Amino acid sequence: MPVDVAYDLENRKALIHSHFEHLVTQTGQPYSRLIDAARYSLFNGGKRLRPLLVLGAAEAFEAPLEKAMPTACAIEMIHTYSLIHDDLPCMDDDDFRRGKPSLHKAFDEAHAVLAGDYLLTKAFQVISEDEGLTPEQRVKLIALIAANSGAHGMVGGQSFDMCAEGAPLSLKDLQLLHSLKTGALITASLLAGATIGNASREEYALMKLFGDELGLAFQIFDDILDVTHAFAKRGAQQSSDEANNKTTYVTLLGIEEAARAGQTHRDKALEHLKALKRETGFLEHLATGVGKGHCPS
Amino acid sequence: MPVDVAYDLENRKALIHSHFEHLVTQTGQPYSRLIDAARYSLFNGGKRLRPLLVLGAAEAFEAPLEKAMPTACAIEMIHTYSLIHDDLPCMDDDDFRRGKPSLHKAFDEAHAVLAGDYLLTKAFQVISEDEGLTPEQRVKLIALIAANSGAHGMVGGQSFDMCAEGAPLSLKDLQLLHSLKTGALITASLLAGATIGNASREEYALMKLFGDELGLAFQIFDDILDVTHAFAKRGAQQSSDEANNKTTYVTLLGIEEAARAGQTHRDKALEHLKALKRETGFLEHLATGVGKGHCPS
Repeated sequence: MPVDVAYDLENRKALIHSHFEHLVTQTGQPYSRLIDAARYSLFNGGKRLRPLLVLGAAEAFEAPLEKAMPTACAIEMIHTYSLIHDDLPCMDDDDFRRGKPSLHKAFDEAHAVLAGDYLLTKAFQVISEDEGLTPEQRVKLIALIAANSGAHGMVGGQSFDMCAEGAPLSLKDLQLLHSLKTGALITASLLAGATIGNASREEYALMKLFGDELGLAFQIFDDILDVTHAFAKRGAQQSSDEANNKTTYVTLLGIEEAARAGQTHRDKALEHLKALKRETGFLEHLATGVGKGHCPS
Repeated sequence: MPVDVAYDLENRKALIHSHFEHLVTQTGQPYSRLIDAARYSLFNGGKRLRPLLVLGAAEAFEAPLEKAMPTACAIEMIHTYSLIHDDLPCMDDDDFRRGKPSLHKAFDEAHAVLAGDYLLTKAFQVISEDEGLTPEQRVKLIALIAANSGAHGMVGGQSFDMCAEGAPLSLKDLQLLHSLKTGALITASLLAGATIGNASREEYALMKLFGDELGLAFQIFDDILDVTHAFAKRGAQQSSDEANNKTTYVTLLGIEEAARAGQTHRDKALEHLKALKRETGFLEHLATGVGKGHCPS
């Protein structure tokens, strides 16, 4: 990876980290346990893919990074809350997240529910109060992000996933599941950046096509990683998906064919990005890294 | 109660119900279980106090009811999600809500978590997409409601409550707990109506005073009801607060003194309302009913 992109990546992650320090600060009693719980998950070594996509998309339309930073952090808060709730015993029942105890193990189940509720609420508060954006941009962003993280997006996908557990899924249903559960928020991250950069209608449509293909590629390679890195990721020999009897791209296609499908979606994503004819070097780097070990996840 | 106010009350509750039918509709697979779960709780016989407060406050500033309806429903969605999550086994562990099985008993724990997440997300979506309001009004409403339902409001209050369980609280801490857990969203409902009606700064401040006193009165009488109506409310001889060893106004003050304190706060609330010098008959009716058995809760 070129030195300047590597520098940008680390630099932007540091900026995101520092903006979180500003947004979610410890204010003492009686909120201290709740804030501690939220911070535990926010600073748990996440690779910041979604906020980096927001920043990259805004940059493509020449918006300054600081203009996109609150929205980038808001979307990462929503991603973080969804991981906290998904790890709960009544959901995927994962005791580990990125090699550390999940929030409900490190704190307690009640605070895992509450810290998730808080981060989701705070995400919308951050955007609504962002004076660097016009009120029109703010309501457009909130509508976009809420639509993609609610019943017809991320939460709907998780519900579908819970209902499907134990029963085999067709490839078509698996794609629908992931387009809701993971893809919707990835695409929304890119469209949020495009909204902040006042993209034209055509550019917005191309960014959506890029996001949809990227989301598919991302999920396929994530399924592959879940199998190959089960121990490193989860502290268990058996992957969480296997333990929960879930259909994945790997169980349907096998590792090799799944990897080929992932590459195809990644290539299509890059074609849409190229068609934008904008300064998309950073996004191209992120997209190229999917499945090659240097993409944040 | 005067015939026209009684008519208004029932009529408005029917309008709220019908707006929910429009907002949360069954769209079939793969979302059907999630939407069914959300509808189970939304249509579970709630008395609609918060949306009625939004409508009453908007009306005081001469805003048409239909202009306030989406925001009224959004706030009730947030109230509903908080009840769903509070009932979970890891929180208050209540198997009944208004005499019917709690959502996690009627469906499953995962869908109680997810339906709550969905309703919270949808609440902000509804306001962000409300074309009857200016973008400025919408971001102001979202910021107001998020601030009062997040860490420094409702969710913070619930965290405080969980941390305090088993340990006795002082009267001051109990008031702080309730002002966060219950009072903040009651006041926010009134201020939302005032925002929709473009209240002046002075009127907004008076509405806040009214809301803060009303919230205190409401919680005190709710504690009294929890003891006196334990069986009817929860299907158990022992009240949920007693079972969880919680400090309440009744455990601190006894029923009689608690009732006097509730009356004092209700009277103060009504004084602030009177000072508004607006058409506040409907709000006055709601406030007067607190603790007298004809107030929605």
